[in-house]
Amino acid sequence: MSQKKTVRDYIRTIPDFPKPGIMFRDVTTLFADPRGFRICIDQLLDPFADQRFDKVAALESRGFIMGGAIAHQLNVGFVPIRKKGKLPGATISEEYLLEYGEATMEVHDNAFTPGERVLLVDDLLATGGTAGAGVKLCERLGARIVGCAFIIDLPDLGGRKRLEEMGLRVESLCSFEGD
Amino acid sequence: MSQKKTVRDYIRTIPDFPKPGIMFRDVTTLFADPRGFRICIDQLLDPFADQRFDKVAALESRGFIMGGAIAHQLNVGFVPIRKKGKLPGATISEEYLLEYGEATMEVHDNAFTPGERVLLVDDLLATGGTAGAGVKLCERLGARIVGCAFIIDLPDLGGRKRLEEMGLRVESLCSFEGD
Repeated sequence: MSQKKTVRDYIRTIPDFPKPGIMFRDVTTLFADPRGFRICIDQLLDPFADQRFDKVAALESRGFIMGGAIAHQLNVGFVPIRKKGKLPGATISEEYLLEYGEATMEVHDNAFTPGERVLLVDDLLATGGTAGAGVKLCERLGARIVGCAFIIDLPDLGGRKRLEEMGLRVESLCSFEGD
Repeated sequence: MSQKKTVRDYIRTIPDFPKPGIMFRDVTTLFADPRGFRICIDQLLDPFADQRFDKVAALESRGFIMGGAIAHQLNVGFVPIRKKGKLPGATISEEYLLEYGEATMEVHDNAFTPGERVLLVDDLLATGGTAGAGVKLCERLGARIVGCAFIIDLPDLGGRKRLEEMGLRVESLCSFEGD
């Protein structure tokens, strides 16, 4: 009996990247495979099949890859949420804590009109710091985050719990424990 | 008589970004509009309607947005070409000249199998330095660049000429002169 590969099967694990002790979950092997990329996008959308969206918001940089595909599939607009200094127009920003220090995410201040229904996408949910900042940016502009879709959840790092405590619906395609 | 907006009409120009004297062509206003994003992706693919592709290769970071949508539309795999140090696996790299200094682009060394037919995409063709490096990376892995698709061409900066001299087919949706 043959079994088809799952999204998780296409993901490559690279030890010690970007620093010793980190098991990096590499989605480029998933994206490079035509069937892998197709089922990834389809499965990210599956849980939200009964929802209506106005825009997809995606987190720099890998989130752009799925975000572009999903926005195209849904026939909606695409909004990039980027690291500080990358967006050319007037922005609003949110700081968030990293393991050491802090970082800032930005979105253009005209990216949403109030009440727009948004799907937030990124490849990986770890501590939820970046995603949480992205959610706040969208909500500050009056958007409503209908859901957050990730390929990978690292539940030990608490990101899902953190986003759910913000009242958000969180969906992911696979998880890796012990990270 | 009403005239529908073109891709060019959706692009916002921001003076003096990222530094004084630069007229930055901002595609986020194009991507944020559902019709804008739709016609952008459709028109990027139009010139290649009679071609067969195995993969889409896209340049970090804005190229990822269209690249993801196009790979999904074509049902093919997606390969990211990134700045140095961003890809987790074994890579090959190409240096290229910037206005001041140089930069390096990388691709995973297993991103293509020889003979694969590739569409290279990015938002902007300026000097062609980044795109040229991306083309070389793909070709060193045995891929065949069937075409290069850009939203914006800045012909005064010579990128189109440079890529065409490399024997490449170059398509763009609009151009801005005097940049």
